[in-house]
Amino acid sequence: MDVISAIHSRSSYRGKYDVAPVSREHLRLIVEAGIAAPSGCNKQSSSFIAIDEPSLLKKIHQLLDPSVIDCPPAMICVISQRLIAYRNVSFSVQDYSAAIENMLLTIVALGYQSCWIEGHITDSDAIGRKIADLLGVPDDFSLVCLLPVGRALEPVKRIEKKTFEQRAWFNGFMHKENMNCND
Amino acid sequence: MDVISAIHSRSSYRGKYDVAPVSREHLRLIVEAGIAAPSGCNKQSSSFIAIDEPSLLKKIHQLLDPSVIDCPPAMICVISQRLIAYRNVSFSVQDYSAAIENMLLTIVALGYQSCWIEGHITDSDAIGRKIADLLGVPDDFSLVCLLPVGRALEPVKRIEKKTFEQRAWFNGFMHKENMNCND
Repeated sequence: MDVISAIHSRSSYRGKYDVAPVSREHLRLIVEAGIAAPSGCNKQSSSFIAIDEPSLLKKIHQLLDPSVIDCPPAMICVISQRLIAYRNVSFSVQDYSAAIENMLLTIVALGYQSCWIEGHITDSDAIGRKIADLLGVPDDFSLVCLLPVGRALEPVKRIEKKTFEQRAWFNGFMHKENMNCND
Repeated sequence: MDVISAIHSRSSYRGKYDVAPVSREHLRLIVEAGIAAPSGCNKQSSSFIAIDEPSLLKKIHQLLDPSVIDCPPAMICVISQRLIAYRNVSFSVQDYSAAIENMLLTIVALGYQSCWIEGHITDSDAIGRKIADLLGVPDDFSLVCLLPVGRALEPVKRIEKKTFEQRAWFNGFMHKENMNCND
């Protein structure tokens, strides 16, 4: 799938997943896309745990209380270290976000669906830490995001977004030139 | 260009740019890729200003002191609002990072090069604010990133990254199963 089609096909899927397993070859392609993402000062602060063991998927899914997704046949856990790029500046959020976007696009290109699950697991009830403990992740890493991976059994819905004109301009903020930008 | 090739072709380019202009059609495709990125609770906290006016490009380039890039024939300025998703939680960094990665992949797919310039303009000397003022960006937005856009005149260098085995595992942190992951 070409880049632009993948970018515009991606959306957050919260429906039922087919139970058919995701191949190791595909999981590796997805994670390699995450690894290839840029990172501030090349700190490569994010790491990845791909889950395809059914009993482990079930345990993780049980920790997601309330459950926000159907139990998928595979999952990518994104773990992040707050590595310092310079002085006290860390780009770890930027690093893992770019990696997640690369993985979401690869997931869509391979015919699967997913959803960026972050707030639900990094919130005060610390579900991410419980999942991290289950996976043996040390305390200096945070489990910041789960990406389910599987084939959709339900229609993929598109969320409504603001228009180009509401979010983008040429050569100045809310510049009028925007109105005839096809010159 | 297919997604996986674009992801693995992208790298941070800091060489000379061809002076040939970037078409409005291409700039719009790049910005539309940013707009299509996911955002936490669909807050769509990032906006974009595409610059292709030569005198404005020169002024922005002069504000980048020390200059970290050659003056490109076009540029995308990413502006961000710290919008609250819920309670006091904002996903604005995640939002603009996913948008930037979508735009970088589109830039590469269209045959251009770029570089994620963030720390240099958001640092204590507030170059981003000076550029924002030049573009009429209100104070409730931060100019968080510049993406130059242009054709490379020099070879594109690849930065060395850690291996898959150093950053990814199956079914557990540093799980040994990783060693024979091609089953």
